[in-house]
Amino acid sequence: MRDFAGTPGTVTALILRMLQCFFAAGSIASMATTSTFFEFTAFCFLIASMGLQILWSFGLAILDIYALAKKKVIHNAGLVSLFVVGDWVTATLSLAAAASSAGITVLYFSDLGGCSFGEECQKYQMAVGLAFLTWVTIGISSVIMFWILAAG
Amino acid sequence: MRDFAGTPGTVTALILRMLQCFFAAGSIASMATTSTFFEFTAFCFLIASMGLQILWSFGLAILDIYALAKKKVIHNAGLVSLFVVGDWVTATLSLAAAASSAGITVLYFSDLGGCSFGEECQKYQMAVGLAFLTWVTIGISSVIMFWILAAG
Repeated sequence: MRDFAGTPGTVTALILRMLQCFFAAGSIASMATTSTFFEFTAFCFLIASMGLQILWSFGLAILDIYALAKKKVIHNAGLVSLFVVGDWVTATLSLAAAASSAGITVLYFSDLGGCSFGEECQKYQMAVGLAFLTWVTIGISSVIMFWILAAG
Repeated sequence: MRDFAGTPGTVTALILRMLQCFFAAGSIASMATTSTFFEFTAFCFLIASMGLQILWSFGLAILDIYALAKKKVIHNAGLVSLFVVGDWVTATLSLAAAASSAGITVLYFSDLGGCSFGEECQKYQMAVGLAFLTWVTIGISSVIMFWILAAG
């Protein structure tokens, strides 16, 4: 296994995991405080997907902190395979959730000639934007994980 | 570079590329024959993304046929890097297009209590389904490409 910035147990990996939790939590907070999100399947899917992302990233952040504190290297093939599968599943779900919510947001904002939900419109946009940021950060983690598995 | 089913210049790779073209063409055909698709940004994005996918997959299918006919191995690192970038970009776009169109389809079919576009509804569903199949096949190609690049 190669050892470079972003591999499990490094500070970069920990920062990426914390950013994922932060963006996903922001997306949920922004979406869940609207009063109409449950009318849209895609928005409920966004919340579910971001919730799963937080659980996953928080778990791996804890593991990174543990590895950093104990100065252990957690690069065995079994563990990395597990990380790769989890990362790719959550990354795919995050992108799908962000894109489907973005589709509906664009539908209301431009195709139907303006959003009629008042203040909630901005919250929808913010939730979608944060979901895309979550996807970017989990995407970076996924690529690094897959790389160390394949290069293993 | 390792040589296994699905790497450039093999029959499996060629079949995958042809399936990508087939599914993407079906998705465009299904969507473009509706009379209302241009009212939805997401549906236009779906057509654009599937069009790009056809161009890319068709080009690589030609290359696979050439490699099979000439019995050449096209595994040099520069070429594979190019394939990886193209595959990942088109795979991401395909998933985003399929998910955003699916978000709108689900909105009309279940959230707003039934689709009111008559026969076109089934075409929308078919286009979204075929777009997801396109994403599955390009996803498989992308993973294989990334694997041979990383495994070097």
